[in-house]
Amino acid sequence: MGSSFGRLFRIATWGESHGGGLGVTIDGCPPGLPLTEADLQAELDRRRPGQSVLTTPRDEPDTCEILSGTFEGRTLGTPIAVLVRNKDARPAAYAEFSRIYRPSHADYTYQAKYDFRTWQGGGRASARETIGRVAAGAVARKVLAEAFGVEVIAWVDRVADVDAKVDPAAVTRAAVEATAVRCPDEAAAARMVERIEAARNAGDSLGGVVRCVGRGVPPGWGDPVFDKLDADLAKALMSLPACKGVEIGSGFEGTRLTGSQHNDAFFMEDGRVRTRTNRSGGIQGGISNGEDILVAAAFKPTATIAKPQETVNEAGEAVTLKAKGRHDPCVLPRAVPIVEAMVAVVLCDHHLRQRGQCGV
Amino acid sequence: MGSSFGRLFRIATWGESHGGGLGVTIDGCPPGLPLTEADLQAELDRRRPGQSVLTTPRDEPDTCEILSGTFEGRTLGTPIAVLVRNKDARPAAYAEFSRIYRPSHADYTYQAKYDFRTWQGGGRASARETIGRVAAGAVARKVLAEAFGVEVIAWVDRVADVDAKVDPAAVTRAAVEATAVRCPDEAAAARMVERIEAARNAGDSLGGVVRCVGRGVPPGWGDPVFDKLDADLAKALMSLPACKGVEIGSGFEGTRLTGSQHNDAFFMEDGRVRTRTNRSGGIQGGISNGEDILVAAAFKPTATIAKPQETVNEAGEAVTLKAKGRHDPCVLPRAVPIVEAMVAVVLCDHHLRQRGQCGV
Amino acid sequence: MGSSFGRLFRIATWGESHGGGLGVTIDGCPPGLPLTEADLQAELDRRRPGQSVLTTPRDEPDTCEILSGTFEGRTLGTPIAVLVRNKDARPAAYAEFSRIYRPSHADYTYQAKYDFRTWQGGGRASARETIGRVAAGAVARKVLAEAFGVEVIAWVDRVADVDAKVDPAAVTRAAVEATAVRCPDEAAAARMVERIEAARNAGDSLGGVVRCVGRGVPPGWGDPVFDKLDADLAKALMSLPACKGVEIGSGFEGTRLTGSQHNDAFFMEDGRVRTRTNRSGGIQGGISNGEDILVAAAFKPTATIAKPQETVNEAGEAVTLKAKGRHDPCVLPRAVPIVEAMVAVVLCDHHLRQRGQCGV
Amino acid sequence: MGSSFGRLFRIATWGESHGGGLGVTIDGCPPGLPLTEADLQAELDRRRPGQSVLTTPRDEPDTCEILSGTFEGRTLGTPIAVLVRNKDARPAAYAEFSRIYRPSHADYTYQAKYDFRTWQGGGRASARETIGRVAAGAVARKVLAEAFGVEVIAWVDRVADVDAKVDPAAVTRAAVEATAVRCPDEAAAARMVERIEAARNAGDSLGGVVRCVGRGVPPGWGDPVFDKLDADLAKALMSLPACKGVEIGSGFEGTRLTGSQHNDAFFMEDGRVRTRTNRSGGIQGGISNGEDILVAAAFKPTATIAKPQETVNEAGEAVTLKAKGRHDPCVLPRAVPIVEAMVAVVLCDHHLRQRGQCGV
Repeated sequence: MGSSFGRLFRIATWGESHGGGLGVTIDGCPPGLPLTEADLQAELDRRRPGQSVLTTPRDEPDTCEILSGTFEGRTLGTPIAVLVRNKDARPAAYAEFSRIYRPSHADYTYQAKYDFRTWQGGGRASARETIGRVAAGAVARKVLAEAFGVEVIAWVDRVADVDAKVDPAAVTRAAVEATAVRCPDEAAAARMVERIEAARNAGDSLGGVVRCVGRGVPPGWGDPVFDKLDADLAKALMSLPACKGVEIGSGFEGTRLTGSQHNDAFFMEDGRVRTRTNRSGGIQGGISNGEDILVAAAFKPTATIAKPQETVNEAGEAVTLKAKGRHDPCVLPRAVPIVEAMVAVVLCDHHLRQRGQCGV
Repeated sequence: MGSSFGRLFRIATWGESHGGGLGVTIDGCPPGLPLTEADLQAELDRRRPGQSVLTTPRDEPDTCEILSGTFEGRTLGTPIAVLVRNKDARPAAYAEFSRIYRPSHADYTYQAKYDFRTWQGGGRASARETIGRVAAGAVARKVLAEAFGVEVIAWVDRVADVDAKVDPAAVTRAAVEATAVRCPDEAAAARMVERIEAARNAGDSLGGVVRCVGRGVPPGWGDPVFDKLDADLAKALMSLPACKGVEIGSGFEGTRLTGSQHNDAFFMEDGRVRTRTNRSGGIQGGISNGEDILVAAAFKPTATIAKPQETVNEAGEAVTLKAKGRHDPCVLPRAVPIVEAMVAVVLCDHHLRQRGQCGV
Repeated sequence: MGSSFGRLFRIATWGESHGGGLGVTIDGCPPGLPLTEADLQAELDRRRPGQSVLTTPRDEPDTCEILSGTFEGRTLGTPIAVLVRNKDARPAAYAEFSRIYRPSHADYTYQAKYDFRTWQGGGRASARETIGRVAAGAVARKVLAEAFGVEVIAWVDRVADVDAKVDPAAVTRAAVEATAVRCPDEAAAARMVERIEAARNAGDSLGGVVRCVGRGVPPGWGDPVFDKLDADLAKALMSLPACKGVEIGSGFEGTRLTGSQHNDAFFMEDGRVRTRTNRSGGIQGGISNGEDILVAAAFKPTATIAKPQETVNEAGEAVTLKAKGRHDPCVLPRAVPIVEAMVAVVLCDHHLRQRGQCGV
Repeated sequence: MGSSFGRLFRIATWGESHGGGLGVTIDGCPPGLPLTEADLQAELDRRRPGQSVLTTPRDEPDTCEILSGTFEGRTLGTPIAVLVRNKDARPAAYAEFSRIYRPSHADYTYQAKYDFRTWQGGGRASARETIGRVAAGAVARKVLAEAFGVEVIAWVDRVADVDAKVDPAAVTRAAVEATAVRCPDEAAAARMVERIEAARNAGDSLGGVVRCVGRGVPPGWGDPVFDKLDADLAKALMSLPACKGVEIGSGFEGTRLTGSQHNDAFFMEDGRVRTRTNRSGGIQGGISNGEDILVAAAFKPTATIAKPQETVNEAGEAVTLKAKGRHDPCVLPRAVPIVEAMVAVVLCDHHLRQRGQCGV
């Protein structure tokens, strides 16, 4: 269990890295939404491997098929099932370390939990699972855009210690897509690329931070006290492979301020309640306040590295692992569309929830 | 909606700051567990206001009553309902700014969402809501202790920029409780107290970081891919009032390392798979690996401050707010039992889930 | 687990027959609804024991208290907690057969499931648990009435083999309440009362059928394929104590017709699609069609009887049981408000769900 | 929403009658269970159309593919995705009445709910949706057989007014499968076949009752008070296309007895608590008692008939419908494996739930 997310806009992913394929079912998408495979493919292409020198050489077209839930190019309101076949699976590449627990991977914990696992490319723990999330996010994004003109944009904000300078209020998707590393600050992007290539050449890997803004979200989304908008965003992002931290608005740094420095003063603008600063990240008491939603997610350095590592195998013997397989030296660039997808899914779910519970 | 949490160990809180009372229902507690009100009261006393000079002067005994779910001192397996009456509610204190949106509080967002709200002490958005969480956490902790000897200990790790030095593997609850600020590093604790008192005297407030360790958790808890143990912990903590960030293991700082620095090497110890470091925070692929569970939560400075603030009222007029009400100049010390409660609830839920789904 | 029901209008009951009390939490009630304890009490009074010669002599005022979720007489949109204290609990009356499994009661199964139980009056399995359902139903009914003028009316349609003749389209609550047995067909009601009194005098008990109509439900409520409106109604009713069967529309008898006899022909009336007959019971494909919702529930004869019965005790010894305790010789009259409550809860949940998922 | 069922053994179906295909995802199947496509295909073959003269001539092999969740012939504990492609879809056959609301079908209600629908063969409301249920039921059955030797057997107990005489304690699947109508009483079966063929020749259709027994279920399954075993069974069965009634144990007829006649006396047998009769249908207080689980489901006569019918179209005009399409003159024979599937799914879910919540 654990493979579904959302209450009214509910997504459920399935699939392993080297099995027959991967996919998602979206239950709760409103009817009448124009939707074709091209809508999903555009996002899947941003996520797919092999798209740049920074990513794994595994060559997967990740072509999707919508199996249900649409008719004559529009959604029916019934579950939308999406299928992506695995094409370039090479399980044999994993055979030699099939009994070895790769450090900071999920091999050992899957074995401990299920007492049985596929050793092929991480199985269900592979980041290929996020294919379904990205497809679902594309649908969520369309719903949000139709209903409120909401747009969700993420970018790589830091790789290792290379920081970018990005204005969340102004950043565009075009600027994000303009660099291979998906950092809209070109100078920082160039340094990030250098660092990633150096890490790869050293048989090593890097981590960093993705930030994301949701613009156009109206006030009122989010359900206190457990399904607060920020709580659901935190769960959605922390459920991503390699994520080790989540922030809303001012995050950890904001805790160094005093209350008088940190509070967001209200004022009126064009008849609308606004805040002069946005340390709240667009969410107060778990409910959106109409300002930009601001979140950040920390991704650890890729666990798969070429350098030899000490570890143990299923028999409990000490062994040295020299990974082969194909992998990204830094997951950040491909994490961008995945973060956007999860943020969009959360927002869409709360959009529908709010419609359900608004006044008598 | 949104007031319940957990799948098999499901808690549901109710109540407003100044209404008839607050409470929780716990559905799914295993039968036969010794449980009396004293078990809950011990934790509620750690959370309650008025316990030290650092906390709000609101004087609430927060005495609990178990209304159902136990018989002759043991749990029945049926829902455990817990009630705490409000005693020292002084709604009149809020009357004068009943139409004013307090900055960085939830007044405006509740009004925007529900088109109706109680202006008495924040209503449902008050941190008094966490009474139910703490009561539920006391039950979860007993289940975990009985089943696995699991213990969950949190502490104040930072206030503003005053850092503590604490060893998660060794910290004891006694050491935490030894200081009013619940920081087991006594020197740091003294500086924290100074800083909090200074902030209060200045009519201001402070934030900081609470860290928490779960010791004794066996491998195998957590349900990929959305209900990963870390994802559920992130949601649980981010749903707390004033929380703006969550980390698991190495968190944001870990993203500055390379993979070869960051990976946790496996080795065998006493026939058990262990890791030499614990940057994973005891969770890999969303599943516990048997090492200590390590989490952190960032709490912003208290939104209620005595300093005058610019804001607007319900009529859309600019006004100056000078808060009265009673409040904590720093929520961190009282957040400690609350963080422990939520971590325990998540662990208990996944303990039961794992029992349900283990091998055929 | 298992003590909550509904997705957007979610109710959760708690409490045992002879514990501190019973109650319900309603999470998801829309904000702004006028609601006071009097609204709930009117329905609780219809359910409470001791209201007529046909019911148990246990004297419980079942006075309710709303502990949260309202402010100045209107709902806040936050959880509504309702508490009813047990007053006339006489656990000692059960002490002598505390180790005996009463036939067709839940004593044995609770023991088998939980390995521990309260022997006082059935504990959680007592029909007193339905207090919370009735309180929640009163809230649901108010939401439905405000939003659509929906009314939900149930009546006793059969006791043993005494059938009533009732027109679902015309029946009024006043007519139902006019007889002690809650059967609006006065002649049948008189025979039913006779039969129930005869059964009681014989130390025996009777069962029967309650029917219920929901009028004013608009087309479009119900969520295929598992949460069909009829499926949720079936679950809601079958979850009632003593219920052994549920029908929608033509039910079991309808299966004796041919398709050409059974089909409900569509026609237009005042610009609205109508059906000439209503064998569908107002639900087609799991979705309301705008006609009256028609359901029926079969209730077995009360398991508690005065006649001696052969059974076994916890030690596995054969024993003869001569029940004391206080009980209803026929649960049907008091089942009427309970059936109405569950039907209203299901309709209200689907009303909110439909709001959430209607067009983009 | 509404396309998933179960809490720990959660199934989610997708697909329309004439779209790209249909399927199911099973989340929560325990790991290590031997499972191949042949296990599912055996059940799908019992459900598929064209298997006898009594069923629709639509020729669908309904060949399934397991896309995920297994490895080397055993389950992984991760979601099992199953796909069945539509082959013999002939949407054109429906084109001529694409704007007509077929009586007692879901055309009108889907239009009313979603404001958009596929007119091809009922879309999501088609009984083809049950393909996913049957595949999931095959998995549930394997889990139950491995864990407890539970077997689930259903049969056609009545067609129109032709009753069968079947002993639930002794009936075998071989006897059920021995007749085209899936009635193990051969004489009754012969009369049922005659009646069905006569109905078809008359352009009409028939309904009836399917009964089902679950043997080998241990005491303790079912979660009071809303997720009682009988309540979940009622929902599962009432969610099936054409189902209008559900009974547990003595059902509606049992309500004609007195309590002393109806109660199931307990006795000891081989150290085990047994009941002398089984009017409870193996469930008391919502929890299994170790006796056979007995349920019945009423299926209305097929809505699609060849006889002309009065109805209206989307424009609100009165029209006469003469259906073409392909359909079953009586759904009962094919309902047998579907009922078994749903009963197995409910039992399997509660098996896992009980494991999760048993003693501390």
